[in-house]
Amino acid sequence: MHVIEITGTGRPSTILVGEKMENLARYLPAGRTIVITDATVRQLYQDRFPTAPVLSIGCGEAVKTLETATDLYETLLSLEADRSTFILGIGGGIVCDVTGFVASTFMRGLRFGFVATTLLAQVDASVGGKNGVNLEGYKNLIGTFNQPEFVLCDMQLLQTLPEAEVINGMAEIVKHALIADAGLFAFLEEQGQSALSLDPAIIERLVRDSVVIKSGVVSRDERETGERRKLNFGHTFGHALEKVSGLSHGEAVSVGMVLAASLSVRRGRLAAAAHDRVIRLLRSLRLPCTAPAAVGRVVDAVLKDKKREADRIHFVMLEDIGRAVVEDISIAELKAAAAAFECILQPTGRHAVP
Amino acid sequence: MHVIEITGTGRPSTILVGEKMENLARYLPAGRTIVITDATVRQLYQDRFPTAPVLSIGCGEAVKTLETATDLYETLLSLEADRSTFILGIGGGIVCDVTGFVASTFMRGLRFGFVATTLLAQVDASVGGKNGVNLEGYKNLIGTFNQPEFVLCDMQLLQTLPEAEVINGMAEIVKHALIADAGLFAFLEEQGQSALSLDPAIIERLVRDSVVIKSGVVSRDERETGERRKLNFGHTFGHALEKVSGLSHGEAVSVGMVLAASLSVRRGRLAAAAHDRVIRLLRSLRLPCTAPAAVGRVVDAVLKDKKREADRIHFVMLEDIGRAVVEDISIAELKAAAAAFECILQPTGRHAVP
Repeated sequence: MHVIEITGTGRPSTILVGEKMENLARYLPAGRTIVITDATVRQLYQDRFPTAPVLSIGCGEAVKTLETATDLYETLLSLEADRSTFILGIGGGIVCDVTGFVASTFMRGLRFGFVATTLLAQVDASVGGKNGVNLEGYKNLIGTFNQPEFVLCDMQLLQTLPEAEVINGMAEIVKHALIADAGLFAFLEEQGQSALSLDPAIIERLVRDSVVIKSGVVSRDERETGERRKLNFGHTFGHALEKVSGLSHGEAVSVGMVLAASLSVRRGRLAAAAHDRVIRLLRSLRLPCTAPAAVGRVVDAVLKDKKREADRIHFVMLEDIGRAVVEDISIAELKAAAAAFECILQPTGRHAVP
Repeated sequence: MHVIEITGTGRPSTILVGEKMENLARYLPAGRTIVITDATVRQLYQDRFPTAPVLSIGCGEAVKTLETATDLYETLLSLEADRSTFILGIGGGIVCDVTGFVASTFMRGLRFGFVATTLLAQVDASVGGKNGVNLEGYKNLIGTFNQPEFVLCDMQLLQTLPEAEVINGMAEIVKHALIADAGLFAFLEEQGQSALSLDPAIIERLVRDSVVIKSGVVSRDERETGERRKLNFGHTFGHALEKVSGLSHGEAVSVGMVLAASLSVRRGRLAAAAHDRVIRLLRSLRLPCTAPAAVGRVVDAVLKDKKREADRIHFVMLEDIGRAVVEDISIAELKAAAAAFECILQPTGRHAVP
């Protein structure tokens, strides 16, 4: 097991990579725990849940709303949860995001922790203290920064994941490699196929390295005023694409990373050979490099995305495999760049119906 | 003008006591501001508002809901608010509580500040970083701790307050005196009548002393894990009474303080003479010392109040005028004490209809 600490402005957050869910009780405080999970996870792993009331939310991005949060608040109230209650989220990114938000705002904040049951949650969603719900289709528009006390990442839970979910998580691992760790990128080039088949040793190394990279960035810039923006590599377009195209988060981020890498080449920041390695790795991991979506709609969605500030946008470029840099670019430049990539977004030349 | 700083875990919060609203622009950052206010304040003081979009919420505790917050989120989205937008709440406690919550959760937190337009907001609600909305009648059940960048307290704005609102604010000033400042208590005994008639020098001293006391406590214990609980003096029963009786916040807290002072005498903590001084001062300020409400319902409401932890409750007692102490008491003891005070809650012997 690897224990990685995030030291933000509040309590430290401990990420337990490779710990078994059977040992969960070691990390729960004395006193009352209430579990928040979803129906799928409950069915698969309920026998490993602690003895505690279990609240289930639905599955899929559509349940990540203020209405779901309100239902949970009301159930917590009816269960007489109080400031000494510990909230345990067991699930993927959606469960972790909603649980973190509800725990951070109920009675102005209860203690909470996660068991991350998907690859995406283990390498990204559960780590770093961002939580939230969507509003009018904008991802995580309502939320807070607040670290979970612990995140337990049991590799064994990943064995029940559908392959699409494994691929979904791989995109964020590639992202971490691209922004901070050329060695991890090379390891992915060598071992990508073993990773897709969930070889335990390979996958644990990938999760550990990802968490180390993300934890380091978050510890240095919890509130995303500078360095943490690098974690948005591929996400400016990725979030927008996810919204308008129906791609999974990982797929949309994959296309977003290709766009960002291409933009980096266009600006003279990145060598074309490095750009091509990015494409090759993503393809080998069965991640898409193009996607059908009208550029205008993607740009509109980008403009409403929460990372926009006034008429400029923080955009994460690559300087090399393993080295990212954040640059302010104007909305006009963004639009021009997006238009230039129409051929990528629209490989068939057809325009998607808005 | 008196400038008082709160140093919590995040940015410092600056309270400007006696600053004129005309000088507001000095404290607003460059860039875009959006104002949140209510219809009454807007009508009275719109001419002093900064040039900015103005969002109005309704008046009264009933608007302090997640629905109101959601309306504000949607309006902020339609105005294309982003992470660089500054949110300015102009109003009383309800405007400040809702504005603080919305600003703290929209895009995981925008910068924000307040112009406090009521005595209650100046001495209490706007200061200290607590925000929130009600859920199912429970006050501030959903919220966060997050300090406003500044709170501007212009005494001149108080001149338009109805007398009931002045009395409402006086209860919290008495509370601050009781928990921390015997000199302020004596000053209130001497100058209470001038305060009620809003003598500018008197009222500024009261606001300043209150803010100094509250800021000191909050700086030492922002998240209410210890000393900050003293600020709940009179509020355990006060909140519950407010919920079940229809009393104003100040009136309910006044009765709650009488109950807490009486309980302190019963436990041998407080001299009877001090208890009687508390009653005399509250009466002279036209605050109630008794209230009609069935004890059972008040206790039920206390048990669901957010300050409850498991089967014990933190209860703030007085040791003397100007000195408070927090003690854990059992729910059983609380019920017994409440029953013993039935005569205070039910002076006529009648039971209120539930």
